[in-house]
Amino acid sequence: MADLLWQKPGVEVDARIQAFLAGNDVLLDREFFLHDITASAAHAEGLQRIGILSADELEGLKRELAVLADDFRSGAFVLDERYEDGHSAIEARLTERLGDAGRRIHTGRSRNDQILVATRLWLKEKLARVAALSRDIAKIALDRADAEKQLPIPGYTHIQRAVVSSAGMWWAGWAEAFIDDAIRAADTLNLIDANPLGTAAGYGVNLTLDREHTTHALGFARMQVSPVYAQLSRGKFELAALEALGSATLDLRRIAWDLSLYTTAEFGFVALPAQYTTGSSIMPNKRNPDVIELMRATHASVAAARTEIEQLLSLPSGYQRDLQASKGAIFHGFGRGLAALELLPDLLANLEWREDRLRAAIDSGMYATDVAVDAAVAGVPFREAYKAAAASADSAGRGRTPEGSLAVRTSPGAAADLRLDTLRARFDALR
Amino acid sequence: MADLLWQKPGVEVDARIQAFLAGNDVLLDREFFLHDITASAAHAEGLQRIGILSADELEGLKRELAVLADDFRSGAFVLDERYEDGHSAIEARLTERLGDAGRRIHTGRSRNDQILVATRLWLKEKLARVAALSRDIAKIALDRADAEKQLPIPGYTHIQRAVVSSAGMWWAGWAEAFIDDAIRAADTLNLIDANPLGTAAGYGVNLTLDREHTTHALGFARMQVSPVYAQLSRGKFELAALEALGSATLDLRRIAWDLSLYTTAEFGFVALPAQYTTGSSIMPNKRNPDVIELMRATHASVAAARTEIEQLLSLPSGYQRDLQASKGAIFHGFGRGLAALELLPDLLANLEWREDRLRAAIDSGMYATDVAVDAAVAGVPFREAYKAAAASADSAGRGRTPEGSLAVRTSPGAAADLRLDTLRARFDALR
Amino acid sequence: MADLLWQKPGVEVDARIQAFLAGNDVLLDREFFLHDITASAAHAEGLQRIGILSADELEGLKRELAVLADDFRSGAFVLDERYEDGHSAIEARLTERLGDAGRRIHTGRSRNDQILVATRLWLKEKLARVAALSRDIAKIALDRADAEKQLPIPGYTHIQRAVVSSAGMWWAGWAEAFIDDAIRAADTLNLIDANPLGTAAGYGVNLTLDREHTTHALGFARMQVSPVYAQLSRGKFELAALEALGSATLDLRRIAWDLSLYTTAEFGFVALPAQYTTGSSIMPNKRNPDVIELMRATHASVAAARTEIEQLLSLPSGYQRDLQASKGAIFHGFGRGLAALELLPDLLANLEWREDRLRAAIDSGMYATDVAVDAAVAGVPFREAYKAAAASADSAGRGRTPEGSLAVRTSPGAAADLRLDTLRARFDALR
Amino acid sequence: MADLLWQKPGVEVDARIQAFLAGNDVLLDREFFLHDITASAAHAEGLQRIGILSADELEGLKRELAVLADDFRSGAFVLDERYEDGHSAIEARLTERLGDAGRRIHTGRSRNDQILVATRLWLKEKLARVAALSRDIAKIALDRADAEKQLPIPGYTHIQRAVVSSAGMWWAGWAEAFIDDAIRAADTLNLIDANPLGTAAGYGVNLTLDREHTTHALGFARMQVSPVYAQLSRGKFELAALEALGSATLDLRRIAWDLSLYTTAEFGFVALPAQYTTGSSIMPNKRNPDVIELMRATHASVAAARTEIEQLLSLPSGYQRDLQASKGAIFHGFGRGLAALELLPDLLANLEWREDRLRAAIDSGMYATDVAVDAAVAGVPFREAYKAAAASADSAGRGRTPEGSLAVRTSPGAAADLRLDTLRARFDALR
Repeated sequence: MADLLWQKPGVEVDARIQAFLAGNDVLLDREFFLHDITASAAHAEGLQRIGILSADELEGLKRELAVLADDFRSGAFVLDERYEDGHSAIEARLTERLGDAGRRIHTGRSRNDQILVATRLWLKEKLARVAALSRDIAKIALDRADAEKQLPIPGYTHIQRAVVSSAGMWWAGWAEAFIDDAIRAADTLNLIDANPLGTAAGYGVNLTLDREHTTHALGFARMQVSPVYAQLSRGKFELAALEALGSATLDLRRIAWDLSLYTTAEFGFVALPAQYTTGSSIMPNKRNPDVIELMRATHASVAAARTEIEQLLSLPSGYQRDLQASKGAIFHGFGRGLAALELLPDLLANLEWREDRLRAAIDSGMYATDVAVDAAVAGVPFREAYKAAAASADSAGRGRTPEGSLAVRTSPGAAADLRLDTLRARFDALR
Repeated sequence: MADLLWQKPGVEVDARIQAFLAGNDVLLDREFFLHDITASAAHAEGLQRIGILSADELEGLKRELAVLADDFRSGAFVLDERYEDGHSAIEARLTERLGDAGRRIHTGRSRNDQILVATRLWLKEKLARVAALSRDIAKIALDRADAEKQLPIPGYTHIQRAVVSSAGMWWAGWAEAFIDDAIRAADTLNLIDANPLGTAAGYGVNLTLDREHTTHALGFARMQVSPVYAQLSRGKFELAALEALGSATLDLRRIAWDLSLYTTAEFGFVALPAQYTTGSSIMPNKRNPDVIELMRATHASVAAARTEIEQLLSLPSGYQRDLQASKGAIFHGFGRGLAALELLPDLLANLEWREDRLRAAIDSGMYATDVAVDAAVAGVPFREAYKAAAASADSAGRGRTPEGSLAVRTSPGAAADLRLDTLRARFDALR
Repeated sequence: MADLLWQKPGVEVDARIQAFLAGNDVLLDREFFLHDITASAAHAEGLQRIGILSADELEGLKRELAVLADDFRSGAFVLDERYEDGHSAIEARLTERLGDAGRRIHTGRSRNDQILVATRLWLKEKLARVAALSRDIAKIALDRADAEKQLPIPGYTHIQRAVVSSAGMWWAGWAEAFIDDAIRAADTLNLIDANPLGTAAGYGVNLTLDREHTTHALGFARMQVSPVYAQLSRGKFELAALEALGSATLDLRRIAWDLSLYTTAEFGFVALPAQYTTGSSIMPNKRNPDVIELMRATHASVAAARTEIEQLLSLPSGYQRDLQASKGAIFHGFGRGLAALELLPDLLANLEWREDRLRAAIDSGMYATDVAVDAAVAGVPFREAYKAAAASADSAGRGRTPEGSLAVRTSPGAAADLRLDTLRARFDALR
Repeated sequence: MADLLWQKPGVEVDARIQAFLAGNDVLLDREFFLHDITASAAHAEGLQRIGILSADELEGLKRELAVLADDFRSGAFVLDERYEDGHSAIEARLTERLGDAGRRIHTGRSRNDQILVATRLWLKEKLARVAALSRDIAKIALDRADAEKQLPIPGYTHIQRAVVSSAGMWWAGWAEAFIDDAIRAADTLNLIDANPLGTAAGYGVNLTLDREHTTHALGFARMQVSPVYAQLSRGKFELAALEALGSATLDLRRIAWDLSLYTTAEFGFVALPAQYTTGSSIMPNKRNPDVIELMRATHASVAAARTEIEQLLSLPSGYQRDLQASKGAIFHGFGRGLAALELLPDLLANLEWREDRLRAAIDSGMYATDVAVDAAVAGVPFREAYKAAAASADSAGRGRTPEGSLAVRTSPGAAADLRLDTLRARFDALR
């Protein structure tokens, strides 16, 4: 069992209770450990700047923190149940190697601001990745929209054939979607880009900590000023980050649904490279689009992580141990969410349309709206034109072609005027 | 039963099924009706600019739309089950009053982009209100933080007495929280500030609609370019808006929890004006802080609205009728959420601290951290200083006072250095 | 504004705060009003039995309660914002008509147990309806399973063609699903079938209330013994009821998904009677399966209701006003859930298979599993038989027919041995 | 990378995609592995009974399955990423040890029914544990209710002092709550106690599998008849199980809230043994009730697991890979949920009331309801008695004592008539 920093003499420790308290916390701390080390070094610098540590002590601490980081990366140091948590492990190691300098590292901080700062650095990294992947996806979608703007595909509402559409329109839709997701991730990154280190247990300390220094050293855009708010932001910022991720994974869920349908034998619009499919243990004939299905499932994990944190946050202000559960939640949500988003760019770049099947699915009724609009342009009030077209829906479209329909789909954003330049300008402005 | 725009001759209509399809949709449309009218006028202007309507027709339509808006506001026109939905009601009224001009209003649009644009205008209005209320709350919190920075209050972690804090610190925490909520609402407003009108049923139309004009006329920051994305944004933007609202209502839940505790007989830190309390039907002695409890409950309604929409959005692209349920959800979430936030500024402005009770709750153990930090400053390694202070937690604080503790709580953001100027600068930069 | 039972002299009432407190509570109380009246009559009987009311007073109260119920049903009495809530309305009416007898009706009860008992009666009624509808649906599915056991349909996994199946198998699956849903609803009804009336505000009263009488008079299976638990069950029982409903609406979501696919042009397996479809405001050619889509959407509303209540229930024991929000939640969840389930029996009874399309969708690869199993029966180890069949998936099935495949699908529950008798026995045992 | 059962020659495998597909699936399978082995033995017996396996082959398979189970328990066999999943690992091991007998084990089954049956056995075990723990908790609560029925405690509504209550009433409330939770768990266990083995990939097989035998051998109450429903029950039964668990963890959340308040300095009603508390890394004076807070947090994890599965289940019938995510969800929900429930019996058995603090918290206003009821008994209409008591709330209770109030709290279930015999009878009837 782990040594406990705060253990008082004479208080008996119950192994079952300790196991419950610990949960898998120390294992989760592996995820945040390098950030914790980075922040510890910045904290030490700050302490030296206000005279709590000597220059020598600081040098020793920074050296040993760097060694610990290396050992952790190489596997020479394993963070496991021998430690109560990652924070205790750092202090124990520094004390073991450096004596009093190690015993001084926790001056003016609490595990509360220590986990806050490590988590915040982690969340920033993950949000930057969501933004980058959203950009990658948007890029592919923009390029394919341009390349395939002439390719007719059936347009659906209610999964019923509606009007002629184009691959260009389909791709442009996803491009705009993921541009928005990239903006959302960047906005959220800005919102949480505030340094909580130096707020201690939520009430500050009786030391003039150099928070400007740690803010700058750790690359934060600003200081999170209020120690009370630093505690209130635990969970709140995790939720904001998961919601930004969720914006992308919800779009992923919908594109996966499209592809799930398009790869059925019945639709047959899309061919997936074989490596995206798997077989069955009993049915020799199967090639299943499991990758697409697991992508579709991804948002459920992000939603679960949100639920877990949101349900916790019915609490008064100040730290409560309930918040520990938020750590596993963000790990789960971002773990699944990013794993799926990482695969999407290649999958989209590689999917192939089956043009014959697309054309075969465009039937003559799909020109009825064109017929009605033509009549409206010619002066027939639209509602009458609609009724006339409805009465002869199957015959009215005769002689029309998918290309012909697309060529005059001139409303801004539609097939004949995709306005990709506008989208590309928004894309180029992404941070 | 309502007349149906799309009704085809010979198809029997089943009353039970129509009732299920309609739900309370037309009643919900009341909420969006004025926005629908506004957008219809902009759409008519656009149609006139491309020659679908004559100048006279446009004038007639705009006049009758203005009359309809007045009649709706005054109650002379009631939107009810006689209509399938608000959209049909507008077209029916215009046709009744103007004949062919009314039959032309739907040229180049669908109920799909019609509800999208009306909802978007509504969401923008609501998000602006969330931002404004968050600002109001932050303002009061900033002012009271300044005024009450000397007032000692007990600081808690785990709802256990931890260290001396100040009313100033408590207020500053909420100030920074609601500044962030205001930014979040403004960011979200920007994200959704895109005009979907002119995207029809998700595939555009064979008309060069003047979408630049409608975008400008309706006050949108930009055009939502892709008709496919316009459909994909149904639900997605509603979720983003609810999440921004939820950021504020989660903070509200936590401040309500504080006040719920602080108004108990046992804590007794806060007195609420009598109008915020209610009595019991059976217990003559009770004055209950129901307002605070309903504020605490508010986030549950916002969360429910999120859930309702998120669960719907497991669909392929293109409009599906499932999305109709999103309308009631945002109405419920914003209805409850804003009602609670509207009351918070006054409640915060009027709550009174009971200083005697606050002081009585500060016990000598709460100076133990100060004692340990003092020793650390004097050169004792913190971990040793901690152990010494722990061993004499009750006696060590002797002679210390709340004021003394606060006066040297000098870490940035803490009681002796609240940095309200920094917070006020962020406040002043709010849009 | 409503008169308030508990109003104390000299306390100013703020209209905005009262509006917030009331919400739409009194309108929701309409839903529970007749149950409140019924329970009030039982309570009055109990009071007379312990001497609080005279026989004359009881007679008067029962008579006026019956008149009030009639007036409410006829619309002569309207429950609206003139009253704080339904409970106050009842007491006010009885006092107006009967004087002191009315002022005595609230002896020994609180609005807390009054809303509990009215809600419980309402939930019992709704769960009974879920059970009955689940039975109706199971009945139709059982009958069609029997009638259509020879009809081959393609069987899917991953929405990819897998093996030959039968309409009989499809129907039998839904039959067993809804039998389970009926059991679940009945189990839940049993769990909540406990009388909370007589527990007052959660601590009982100093009167020997005749709770056995009210339990019997109101048709409850047992008394909810503990007043503390009566309060704890607020929300808990609502959740249990919504979860039972959700079991059925989740099955509904999945059957709606099947039908949504089967009614596409691409699958084309099912024809829906025209009254289940709607048209488009812009596309004259469309007939959309909106009923199916709104059925699919239904579970989202049930899930939202669950979320709303679950989020509230992070509270200490004892009544808290937060719980008020549970009322609207169950109304929303059961309102939507039952509306959809009510339409399902007829829809299922009326849907027509398009046999030609079903047969056309069965391709020769779908016999590969049969080929492998045949080889396994003949002695080839299955894993080798599988590989051999995989190598020749397209050719191996040659000469096989859907009927032939189904005729030897003899594992219990499969096409050749549906075991409908077993299912029918479980159906017949439903309460 | 794992060998793949279904791998076809010539299809390139992408390591990143395989890693995404696998997720941590094989690690989760450890949790279900022994059940998978048990079910594999029963399946082998069934195959021998219909002539697919010889008696010798069966004997070999059963022996090797037993060895594998031993090796797994001892750590000699490690289930890890070398295998695609637990199912493949079993088949690989049996084939390695037994040759053709191993290649025959998968005859007539699919990984679909294999994971279904293993999960079902696991869920049954977990639900039995929920029921047992709920009984244990109810037992302690019943015993303490009996022992402490004379101990007065303040009764709260709105966390405001309301009326005198007793420890007996408080304990009786939790007793009845957990009796219901035990019933709910048992009902749910019954609902899911159906054998899916033998349903293959959801359409049965061309073999007369002896499903009666496997049903009996595995201890199921009945066969899950329909292969289509077996697939539909994936996720549905997991949700039902999590909901039953959630009923207990929601009660846990509320009892943890009570204890969180009762252990504050301000309430101070309860003393927790020291082993249930922890210290702070920075504040030497703290003893924090972390166990209670993590108990309170537990339901969030159960709710998250529910969300994850519910969000997945927006799918047509038939297996979809999306469902894989349900495995991690139940592991997380039951892992956290049971860990917390396991600690509750001892914690409740050991908590100590601080009688002096309880008595000090009972103020004279808490007799006002008694005063009003006394007047009502004496003939004053209750509403008038209420007003009179309200007017003199503080003075009216003079001379009354907590014991006196409790002694005449005679409504059934209240302090003077707890009806523990009724509760004990329900307890004794628990399965």
